[in-house]
Amino acid sequence: MQIAKVRGTVVSTHKEPSLRGVKFLLLQLLDEEGQPLPQYEVAADIVGAGMDEWVLVSRGSAARQVGENTRPIDAMVVGIIDTVSVDNQVLYGKKDQYR
Amino acid sequence: MQIAKVRGTVVSTHKEPSLRGVKFLLLQLLDEEGQPLPQYEVAADIVGAGMDEWVLVSRGSAARQVGENTRPIDAMVVGIIDTVSVDNQVLYGKKDQYR
Amino acid sequence: MQIAKVRGTVVSTHKEPSLRGVKFLLLQLLDEEGQPLPQYEVAADIVGAGMDEWVLVSRGSAARQVGENTRPIDAMVVGIIDTVSVDNQVLYGKKDQYR
Amino acid sequence: MQIAKVRGTVVSTHKEPSLRGVKFLLLQLLDEEGQPLPQYEVAADIVGAGMDEWVLVSRGSAARQVGENTRPIDAMVVGIIDTVSVDNQVLYGKKDQYR
Amino acid sequence: MQIAKVRGTVVSTHKEPSLRGVKFLLLQLLDEEGQPLPQYEVAADIVGAGMDEWVLVSRGSAARQVGENTRPIDAMVVGIIDTVSVDNQVLYGKKDQYR
Repeated sequence: MQIAKVRGTVVSTHKEPSLRGVKFLLLQLLDEEGQPLPQYEVAADIVGAGMDEWVLVSRGSAARQVGENTRPIDAMVVGIIDTVSVDNQVLYGKKDQYR
Repeated sequence: MQIAKVRGTVVSTHKEPSLRGVKFLLLQLLDEEGQPLPQYEVAADIVGAGMDEWVLVSRGSAARQVGENTRPIDAMVVGIIDTVSVDNQVLYGKKDQYR
Repeated sequence: MQIAKVRGTVVSTHKEPSLRGVKFLLLQLLDEEGQPLPQYEVAADIVGAGMDEWVLVSRGSAARQVGENTRPIDAMVVGIIDTVSVDNQVLYGKKDQYR
Repeated sequence: MQIAKVRGTVVSTHKEPSLRGVKFLLLQLLDEEGQPLPQYEVAADIVGAGMDEWVLVSRGSAARQVGENTRPIDAMVVGIIDTVSVDNQVLYGKKDQYR
Repeated sequence: MQIAKVRGTVVSTHKEPSLRGVKFLLLQLLDEEGQPLPQYEVAADIVGAGMDEWVLVSRGSAARQVGENTRPIDAMVVGIIDTVSVDNQVLYGKKDQYR
């Protein structure tokens, strides 16, 4: 999986019917130091992630394993991140963001 | 999924029979600021996207989940984009394109 | 899918038995202006593409959807390209190649 | 598969229910000379790898082949590496790390 | 598929049980001129490839189509290459390597 930050949303009304009701988030991928990478993903959201939150995104066929697995989805937000630790140091803590 | 812009079409008459009747669009991938990336995809179109429209493209096995899923397709246009918002600002609005 | 040009062949006699009889083409990927990219693929050929022809190549599990789908193939030529149009201009026309 | 070094952990409590109980490791990919690459993966751990250990990571649908294969996981640690040999020289030996 | 050169081996005794008995080769990917690319793969070997041999490697779910397809393997050596021809010239011939 990759670590990403929620940066926005994508709306499409004229789409594959099986995608109706799916919320699409625009995610910016982050590197292992938490810096933005020049890559993004549009991912289906099933955990209700909010703007600027760090999330775990699964890609490929893994993204179809939740709900109806015949939807043409190749990226999905599968968790809101609480903490990321690197070399036993906390790189990111969700709670620290709102102090 | 990725955001892309419809740039053209690809026609192949001598092809795998199960691909007969499939329309192939040439898509240029866009970055999260809407700028063209040096990557493109040839994708099957099931939503009738037009030239210069922004679309959502699914890749990998997700692209086979619509219609007969035994067609050798690895990229599919799954939606025409209405709006893309980044940091609560509208980056792209389909209607604005035709004012 | 990607657009590629047939550049050569790869022969392997000592291989996974299910690959017997499969012809392998060496393809150079092309960008959306028809220029060679520094990437290639060795793909199974089911349409009988010839040297220097432009072809459509499918990759990933899509490449196993034709014939026995338990063959360890991850790239397949699925069509010989007639035309590629970009911004309503013909970038490539198969017939023009042989005038 | 890729060779990676365990650099940390990712914790997510608000996540897809099928991911409960899955431990997520932050892995830095290594090149064939054992040097860190600017790429990382968040992978599910099923072998109990420890900090700084070199591991084998499988990605894509392969990562769902162990345990319930309907979990939205796209990267999994599948082995702790004992040795890596390149050109008949030992590049890495787990035991040498702890002399 | 990709063309690669066998550069070494990876040994892991503490691993996913279904991987027992699988030999892992360290492969360096080659470009279409036979030059080493800065990418490698650790691949399961089912054809008994030797050091420095050129091989065909399949990646993704294709790598699980041989033997038990529930093993978490995402790269597999599927053939030892005899010849690679580019623009009707032999780029590589296995027999020439041992003159």
